[in-house]
Amino acid sequence: MISNTLCLATRPDGPLRTEDLTIVEVELPPLARGDVLVRNRWLSIDPSIRIRLNAETPDGYLPPFPVGEPLSGLAIGTVIESADPEHPVGQLVSHMHGYREHAVVAAEGSTLGGYGGLTAIDPGELPEQWFLGPLGSSGLTAYAGIVGVLGVSPDDIVWVSAAAGAVGSLAAQLAKARGARVIGSAGSPTKVRYLSVELGLDSAFDYHCESITRAVAHAAPDGITAYFDNVGGDHLAAALGNMRPGGRIAMCGAISGYDLTAPAPGPANLFQFVAKGLRMDGFRAGSFNHLMPDMQREIGGYLRSGRIRFDERVFHGLDAAPAAMVAMLNGENTGKTLVRLDTPETSIDTDERP
Amino acid sequence: MISNTLCLATRPDGPLRTEDLTIVEVELPPLARGDVLVRNRWLSIDPSIRIRLNAETPDGYLPPFPVGEPLSGLAIGTVIESADPEHPVGQLVSHMHGYREHAVVAAEGSTLGGYGGLTAIDPGELPEQWFLGPLGSSGLTAYAGIVGVLGVSPDDIVWVSAAAGAVGSLAAQLAKARGARVIGSAGSPTKVRYLSVELGLDSAFDYHCESITRAVAHAAPDGITAYFDNVGGDHLAAALGNMRPGGRIAMCGAISGYDLTAPAPGPANLFQFVAKGLRMDGFRAGSFNHLMPDMQREIGGYLRSGRIRFDERVFHGLDAAPAAMVAMLNGENTGKTLVRLDTPETSIDTDERP
Repeated sequence: MISNTLCLATRPDGPLRTEDLTIVEVELPPLARGDVLVRNRWLSIDPSIRIRLNAETPDGYLPPFPVGEPLSGLAIGTVIESADPEHPVGQLVSHMHGYREHAVVAAEGSTLGGYGGLTAIDPGELPEQWFLGPLGSSGLTAYAGIVGVLGVSPDDIVWVSAAAGAVGSLAAQLAKARGARVIGSAGSPTKVRYLSVELGLDSAFDYHCESITRAVAHAAPDGITAYFDNVGGDHLAAALGNMRPGGRIAMCGAISGYDLTAPAPGPANLFQFVAKGLRMDGFRAGSFNHLMPDMQREIGGYLRSGRIRFDERVFHGLDAAPAAMVAMLNGENTGKTLVRLDTPETSIDTDERP
Repeated sequence: MISNTLCLATRPDGPLRTEDLTIVEVELPPLARGDVLVRNRWLSIDPSIRIRLNAETPDGYLPPFPVGEPLSGLAIGTVIESADPEHPVGQLVSHMHGYREHAVVAAEGSTLGGYGGLTAIDPGELPEQWFLGPLGSSGLTAYAGIVGVLGVSPDDIVWVSAAAGAVGSLAAQLAKARGARVIGSAGSPTKVRYLSVELGLDSAFDYHCESITRAVAHAAPDGITAYFDNVGGDHLAAALGNMRPGGRIAMCGAISGYDLTAPAPGPANLFQFVAKGLRMDGFRAGSFNHLMPDMQREIGGYLRSGRIRFDERVFHGLDAAPAAMVAMLNGENTGKTLVRLDTPETSIDTDERP
């Protein structure tokens, strides 16, 4: 069987451009015992993909994608052929073989980064793509940081950076739902309004301001007790400068550095760790798989009650995946970026939820 | 009563010079109720003093010393006049009013940085100055990092930077005594030999090498699990590069930055926190006062049994305190730097223990 796959055409030198990516027809292998053939329906477009487009990835991280080879990422699809009785034809599944229309997935040994193995999904009344978003990897990442790492309580004053993104918007709302005072930052006036009005955060600011450090100080004159870092760089420096003694940092990502060919230096104020007795934990959701049931219960409840909202920008067709990736990495999207494959259109079209 | 006090003459611009300091005769105030007059016998000369000689100190840290005003630091002395029945004449005490020959100390309200309040000392058979060193602040700092923060166990491969210093030498030996494999680094071939031969560390290297990262990799080909950081900067970057997944960092100090008028940028590889799920805790000994009895019991036992050794470089007389500070900050000393006041000599003389 021949199917379309998104491949890396050339390594991006700086920000990703759509022409760095190309769609290639590949011949799928026949199913071995335990394999299933999945027709993908939803592709998750996440910032961390950018790391693996560079020629080298940080030690300890997943390897770079070779030029000319398919990308991979989380996806949801339907089993259309099965050599595994646990995953019969017709079953809805999530797995790590995204960025392509069809995938042959082994039931075992296909996990990348700890989660992402072939998993059956029963969405019930819920939108199935939420199992890539608030009830899937985005939700687990937010939950791991806010609950697993930071243990946010009503006493906390939490700053979440990139708070209009898929993970950030969930982290900020989850912290708020747990009783904390929450400050969010994002990269445009529209997003700042989204944080204040739609998500109901206590304070929000645009990081394109004179001083991020002063913006945080203005939002939290007595300092912050916790920081959920999606950005790194000047954002992390501002967090250190505004931390109360004993403050905690959950480092989830560092999108400020993903485009750089040579990594940027870190904050000059790391001595704040000593001066104030601060703690920082880096984490990846894959290390918190055990929290998945708790996460789905808690965030699922908040989604049903309307306490948490989740917004998506949906691009249609694999041809639109490069544009989806570029828009997501450029910070043009609010909430989760998805590519939907099982619709005839391939135009770049927004389909945001109300 | 008139007594000599060491004061800041001019703020150092870069490395401290002896002429930045001056000795001033001051009139001591009469004792109020609860005060004692102490004749100091031992002054503790510690790297962190350098931070407070700058015009600004990091947010959350102790304030700068004003020009023309006395310095302060840990000291041990004898009560020679008392208005506090708990601290009678003749008692040996430690307190924070060092860098001077005599001090009026209030029994309460004199703590700076959490420990350092007026404390009676009963050295028994032990050298009294050890209550500034391995059984005092140096010991508590090492214990807080190795036990309180890192929880070092026999499974660990621990790197201690500035391992020939007062705190570093205790931290390295304590980690070794707790069964870990220990790598130490220092700034001269003599010190490296000291780490290997005298302290019996598993591996030691001079940080004046081509690449600290490669030196650590050479000493620990499978990576390190814990890092006790006294230095910051390139040392911290090397630790991040060599950390195993789940590794921990105790940030005790950052002497590489204390001389700088503008703080240096941090490591460019902070994304290692995310990639490897690392944790870093900054700490000051003052937050671990509750561990003091455990520390004195454990380190005291190791000192008596010879499992841990502690070396001192003693300067004589307050006139020698500036030279003691400069030598300590330049990394010229092995072990603890002390000034002894109750001897007639004021020459700069080494008096290292065998």
